[in-house]
Amino acid sequence: MLDISLLGTGGMAPMPKRFLSSMIARLNGRLIIIDCGEGTQVSLKNLGWGFKAVDAVLFTHFHADHISGLPGMLLAIGNSGRTEPLKLIGPKGLIYVVEGLRRIAQELPFEIEYIEIDEKYEKALNISGFTIEWMFVEHSVKCAAYKISVLRAGKFDVSKAKALGLPRELWGRLQKGGDITYNGRFYTKDMVLGAARKPISVVFCTDSRPVEGLKGFAAGSDLFICEGMYGENEKLDKAKENKHMLFSEAAEIAKQADVCELWLTHFSPAMNEPCEFLENAASIFENTVIGYDNLTKTIIFKD
Amino acid sequence: MLDISLLGTGGMAPMPKRFLSSMIARLNGRLIIIDCGEGTQVSLKNLGWGFKAVDAVLFTHFHADHISGLPGMLLAIGNSGRTEPLKLIGPKGLIYVVEGLRRIAQELPFEIEYIEIDEKYEKALNISGFTIEWMFVEHSVKCAAYKISVLRAGKFDVSKAKALGLPRELWGRLQKGGDITYNGRFYTKDMVLGAARKPISVVFCTDSRPVEGLKGFAAGSDLFICEGMYGENEKLDKAKENKHMLFSEAAEIAKQADVCELWLTHFSPAMNEPCEFLENAASIFENTVIGYDNLTKTIIFKD
Repeated sequence: MLDISLLGTGGMAPMPKRFLSSMIARLNGRLIIIDCGEGTQVSLKNLGWGFKAVDAVLFTHFHADHISGLPGMLLAIGNSGRTEPLKLIGPKGLIYVVEGLRRIAQELPFEIEYIEIDEKYEKALNISGFTIEWMFVEHSVKCAAYKISVLRAGKFDVSKAKALGLPRELWGRLQKGGDITYNGRFYTKDMVLGAARKPISVVFCTDSRPVEGLKGFAAGSDLFICEGMYGENEKLDKAKENKHMLFSEAAEIAKQADVCELWLTHFSPAMNEPCEFLENAASIFENTVIGYDNLTKTIIFKD
Repeated sequence: MLDISLLGTGGMAPMPKRFLSSMIARLNGRLIIIDCGEGTQVSLKNLGWGFKAVDAVLFTHFHADHISGLPGMLLAIGNSGRTEPLKLIGPKGLIYVVEGLRRIAQELPFEIEYIEIDEKYEKALNISGFTIEWMFVEHSVKCAAYKISVLRAGKFDVSKAKALGLPRELWGRLQKGGDITYNGRFYTKDMVLGAARKPISVVFCTDSRPVEGLKGFAAGSDLFICEGMYGENEKLDKAKENKHMLFSEAAEIAKQADVCELWLTHFSPAMNEPCEFLENAASIFENTVIGYDNLTKTIIFKD
């Protein structure tokens, strides 16, 4: 099962009760973070999931509200006793930006591995059990949306195992992926499993205008976390100008993508109470939640 | 009169209710900030003094907990509509560090003027009515303590004015510094004022071991804001090793410098309730206050 929490739900500028853009995912105790605005380390401390197991930090883009918390986060991860390498992932420019920020976080007890992602989002990364894909969306600078998936193998197919003539005591080992040799023949788990089952998937998209590809990218996901910079439909011109979305636009994507649940995030500092505008999204896509810092959910495989 | 507020009282890592090192001073509506750790812009928003009037940000040193909030602060000042130049002041290395951090805050509507301070702390800066002096203290890196003073001219001396033969209607103009010519002679305010009176002064020192010069630097100040990384006297070895102070050491300086009031700040994240250790300072220097975020005080001239 996959745990998801929002570490910050503010856009542009942090508010007294709303840190800047960030989310975290936990799988089997391992953590990955997407975006790391100012205050992210405080929010993660509140959440209590620890810092040592953070294996990767992904960045949508490099506007300050999405990365200004990185130096503090690196030092916090360092103070946690981590010595394994940490992956930093983001669009081209990642190394230039992070190396600038690292002038105040030079001494770390772990290596940093940079991955600058390119246009080919079909190529997925596999980190600590998370499968990570991305697509580029439409903001004022190069900006990526991410999909985090937990894949699930097919069910063990007894008839296949029997047909292969494998003794029952070897089935368990084979199912868990331990390839075996028996009577001089080599067997892999694919030979005894059915088709892969639906993965858990969570899509995180901020900052962007609605783009055509997003519908397909988020299609059928368990949770779609999407920016909602403006609650009011009257702010469409502003949203277009600043390359952001209205609540209603995010809801329209959620509806078309047939996701299970929509969380709105990345609220304008001018919007004190995003809940006041919930109906503008919920009237289009009912299962909409107004995000808040430390909103947390556990997603399990559906059978 | 001078208003002082602590924007962050944490050392090393921010806590849920304790942002990182920062203080702000306000004089006639103008603002200067010393240190700018992660969360400073949130704390300033809570305080409500605005961002536009920030004329200078001073840095004691460049450990992340003293400067990580700068990119967000620069953007917040920019969003406030400021177009006048902003002064950034700190030890040598300032430009290198800030230019690194500015990779996420490149477009600002104001110029940045850098002042890298050197050893000669006798040379004061005058910014927006604040007189700023500094001395270098003893930390693991080059680190400055700052003194902010508001100077006060001497009283108008009626006997001097009379002796000069100046008509009474010119006294007011002369006292306010408007040099005048009367009957072919030139008069300056110094000719009618008594000796300069005691300024308001506030000294801010973090991070440092106790050093000899600090006593003289802080002597007689209205407020001495000093780091107290460790409350317990038993942590002396740790304080020495990490180049920090105990509460009792800060109090000893306050006592010897005969300051009016001591505020402790920059608390270790391991110290949940600094108040528990107040007595370790107050038994040495009675007028000790355990700092907290947004602790604020107005200091007026004494007559």
